[in-house]
Amino acid sequence: MAEEEKTVEKTKQRADDNTVFIGSKPTMSYVLAVITQFSGNATEVNVKARGKSISKAVDVVEIVKNKFAKESKVKDIQIKTDRIKTNEGQEMNVSSINIVLAK
Amino acid sequence: MAEEEKTVEKTKQRADDNTVFIGSKPTMSYVLAVITQFSGNATEVNVKARGKSISKAVDVVEIVKNKFAKESKVKDIQIKTDRIKTNEGQEMNVSSINIVLAK
Repeated sequence: MAEEEKTVEKTKQRADDNTVFIGSKPTMSYVLAVITQFSGNATEVNVKARGKSISKAVDVVEIVKNKFAKESKVKDIQIKTDRIKTNEGQEMNVSSINIVLAK
Repeated sequence: MAEEEKTVEKTKQRADDNTVFIGSKPTMSYVLAVITQFSGNATEVNVKARGKSISKAVDVVEIVKNKFAKESKVKDIQIKTDRIKTNEGQEMNVSSINIVLAK
């Protein structure tokens, strides 16, 4: 139940501040997601990723910038460490990135 | 021979501008490399990576910053696309990152 609420909150946040979370889908799915945000009202899109997906986040931003929205620019890049809980209940550190792409 | 010259040049550049290139070694090897640079004269270290190693570069910087050189700060992060030649002679794009860590 708490889990469910968390998901709802996350989805809401996603819609609010134009964020694309990078996961296990193919790179081009996320490229499309960013372009879709730009086609709407968004002038800024946050591309966020954790752990191994960080490389894919950089790929997504580079592809959008060089191929699809050539007027867009990387405005800011932040990295930090998130403390997450595994399914086994253990806590572990995972690196995360937020790339702000603006047009 | 040309290959050899290139390697020499790369090593020289590495020494000159305090750069740590992230590759396939364990994360802690690169953490140690960054700390070693800081223990010398370096006040700034460039952590560079390409493709899948980008995630590891972020891990290295976060570990150095949070565990070993707590006075250090991320000064700048740049991402770009490099055009590289594969062994088969084909050209392909690969994303790269440069994280500037300063103390």
